[in-house]
Amino acid sequence: MINIAVLGYGTVGSGVVEVCSMNKESINKKLGDKIFIKKILDVRDFPDEPLADRFTKNPDEVFLDPEISVVVETIGGIGIAYEYTKRALEAGKSVVTSNKELVATYGPELLAIAYSKKLSYLFEASVGGGIPIIRPLNKCLSANQVESIYGILNGTTNYILTRMKNEKISFETALREAQIHGYAEKIPTADIEGHDTCRKIAILASVASGEFIDYNQIYTEGISCVTDRDIVYADSLNNKIKLIAMAKKDRGNMIELRVAPAFIPVESPLAIADDVFNAILIEGNALGPAMFYGKGAGKMATASAVLADVIEAILHTHLTPHKVLWEQTNTIRVKKHENCAVKAFIRLLEGAESKDLLEKIKSCTDVTILPKQFEDEFAFLAGKTIPITEGALSDILEAFKRQEDPSKKSSFLSMIRLL
Amino acid sequence: MINIAVLGYGTVGSGVVEVCSMNKESINKKLGDKIFIKKILDVRDFPDEPLADRFTKNPDEVFLDPEISVVVETIGGIGIAYEYTKRALEAGKSVVTSNKELVATYGPELLAIAYSKKLSYLFEASVGGGIPIIRPLNKCLSANQVESIYGILNGTTNYILTRMKNEKISFETALREAQIHGYAEKIPTADIEGHDTCRKIAILASVASGEFIDYNQIYTEGISCVTDRDIVYADSLNNKIKLIAMAKKDRGNMIELRVAPAFIPVESPLAIADDVFNAILIEGNALGPAMFYGKGAGKMATASAVLADVIEAILHTHLTPHKVLWEQTNTIRVKKHENCAVKAFIRLLEGAESKDLLEKIKSCTDVTILPKQFEDEFAFLAGKTIPITEGALSDILEAFKRQEDPSKKSSFLSMIRLL
Repeated sequence: MINIAVLGYGTVGSGVVEVCSMNKESINKKLGDKIFIKKILDVRDFPDEPLADRFTKNPDEVFLDPEISVVVETIGGIGIAYEYTKRALEAGKSVVTSNKELVATYGPELLAIAYSKKLSYLFEASVGGGIPIIRPLNKCLSANQVESIYGILNGTTNYILTRMKNEKISFETALREAQIHGYAEKIPTADIEGHDTCRKIAILASVASGEFIDYNQIYTEGISCVTDRDIVYADSLNNKIKLIAMAKKDRGNMIELRVAPAFIPVESPLAIADDVFNAILIEGNALGPAMFYGKGAGKMATASAVLADVIEAILHTHLTPHKVLWEQTNTIRVKKHENCAVKAFIRLLEGAESKDLLEKIKSCTDVTILPKQFEDEFAFLAGKTIPITEGALSDILEAFKRQEDPSKKSSFLSMIRLL
Repeated sequence: MINIAVLGYGTVGSGVVEVCSMNKESINKKLGDKIFIKKILDVRDFPDEPLADRFTKNPDEVFLDPEISVVVETIGGIGIAYEYTKRALEAGKSVVTSNKELVATYGPELLAIAYSKKLSYLFEASVGGGIPIIRPLNKCLSANQVESIYGILNGTTNYILTRMKNEKISFETALREAQIHGYAEKIPTADIEGHDTCRKIAILASVASGEFIDYNQIYTEGISCVTDRDIVYADSLNNKIKLIAMAKKDRGNMIELRVAPAFIPVESPLAIADDVFNAILIEGNALGPAMFYGKGAGKMATASAVLADVIEAILHTHLTPHKVLWEQTNTIRVKKHENCAVKAFIRLLEGAESKDLLEKIKSCTDVTILPKQFEDEFAFLAGKTIPITEGALSDILEAFKRQEDPSKKSSFLSMIRLL
């Protein structure tokens, strides 16, 4: 019998208990042994839960129990979760988590402790919910050099953008709807502003490169600036607007990273990911393109990924662990955002000022004026063939915004990148 | 330094050598050691290849060399490949292969030998070329019960069906074109008639269920009967015709298996797989649906999957191996084809006989007559809501064909299943 403990009985933690019970037979068959959830650590009371007798508020009952060999951390955040993860590893227990924030923040340290103790620290569920992505990237693509990763990694924003497009509603209406359906939090900032997606692409890029990518280095924009008018333009170009996380090698040895809404052609495989679905398109130098698609969140899906890691940790107990996944590296390989090339859709109010801006952009790069969709404004694509950098484009747009009369409505309406 | 040998220097075998050289640095970093291809066994001469000095025609130079710890089998077929795989395992060497025929035929025996010797027998590249699918299914979905697998697993047939649809050409023309481009063999039977797909779904179903599914038990139809007129009808229903491999649990404990062309709605995620691309849609009871998509064949892609398995085999050397993947089972869990429910598109010549057949089918199940696409014929969908079995439908169609005048053109034109 293998004893495990679950830390934090929220959505994912309770899902782990539920999947463990639902698929007990097949899990035990796979394992050739029985999993027993010996302790569940949570500060709250759960007198009516099926495993009510296993709950404890005392962490020592987990960390000082030599019988517990694997600990599931589903507390979330980087406070107590960090402390408990370290304590578990130092007490000789493998740790499995769905906590992307912790992995993206303290991954190298926690992996190093696990490695030194010949333990596992596994986090398949931290990206893509139940979709297999970390292990395929780490194991199945190990003979490839990963050239690029493009991902739709956040279900909340994807649901909102899908509703905005299909129902022709505003961002605010779609967000309220998402909150009512439980797809968005009451304080939705982490999702809406791209922070969640940023941590996830940092993890994927770190797994792909074998070097730790600090998420603070990743340029991140959310979707709150996307309007229904932008979506009308996207539609007219047979494109969808998605919150796209990107990690891409440039021709040198640098990595371009970005989280931002983007126009993607409907023929792109990524475009099938609507509603709360996620999709991750990876290009390997030998493999070519491969895509992984599924529900990127959800209690049972995420819990099943956590439990698969538990099974893996158990099967690997007492085995020489693999090389540590992520080296802390001194070389700054993340390309500065301002030096990255950009292609963009730009929308402006009709008027003399806007014409000036258009001319300015035309003097730096190519411009394609789009068929007019609304009376009072115009839109164009910039940078499709003649490269322009994020820095150069941003300088032009910022200077334009600064010179405008702050008491009037700005002539600049939106800028959304093309994939 | 880790010494490996490659058996068979065909497309995949030479690809392994090429990828190993192309990505040497990143592979060695992942491994924390160096891979060295010590021997390449082939009966042919390759005096001009970069590793010309490593070729041998003498199998003893591989199997009796204690320094060689991993053997790559890319010979193909079930003759010498079987013999050499056994010899390698018995000599204490892990074996990695892309040989679906061998895995689908002798998988349980070879896995059992590997297990008893604490070695690996890995075959990620046997299904989906370079697309990660075996390991995700085996490892990442280990806490799920797999409810169904639907796959487009053969690039040749998918290329032909895509060209037939997009270019409005006949099967024969598309096949010739595929042969010219090297996507189809001169003798294309194994691909065209679904045999290749059949072995692949047998492997996937075996991995998913943990029990060996004999491919001989799988009902298999190819695509040679699909006509351009069928595709016109599919188009009119906003469907595509794809060669679909299916493995699905029924409500009892039985598995329905089938390889046959099928109508799939363009909104199905599978429908994005055109040309030589493959896609595999898996439904887990906790995960829900997840899809894996990419190039299902090709020298470099397949070779990169083989090499990823080599890395895995090396990292696992001297470790307690996992439980054997496939139990040889006595319980016949494959549901008899005639007992499986079917929904079908049926196309008939206009005429009194056809009306009789239509009435006969109407007396057993529901029928939807489709808008007429061609003057001399009509088509309908059967079984969409009232279940009819493959056996019952086949009995009606066979009786109809038997009663027809063999000197005349048959009134029965085609029957293609709906997904």
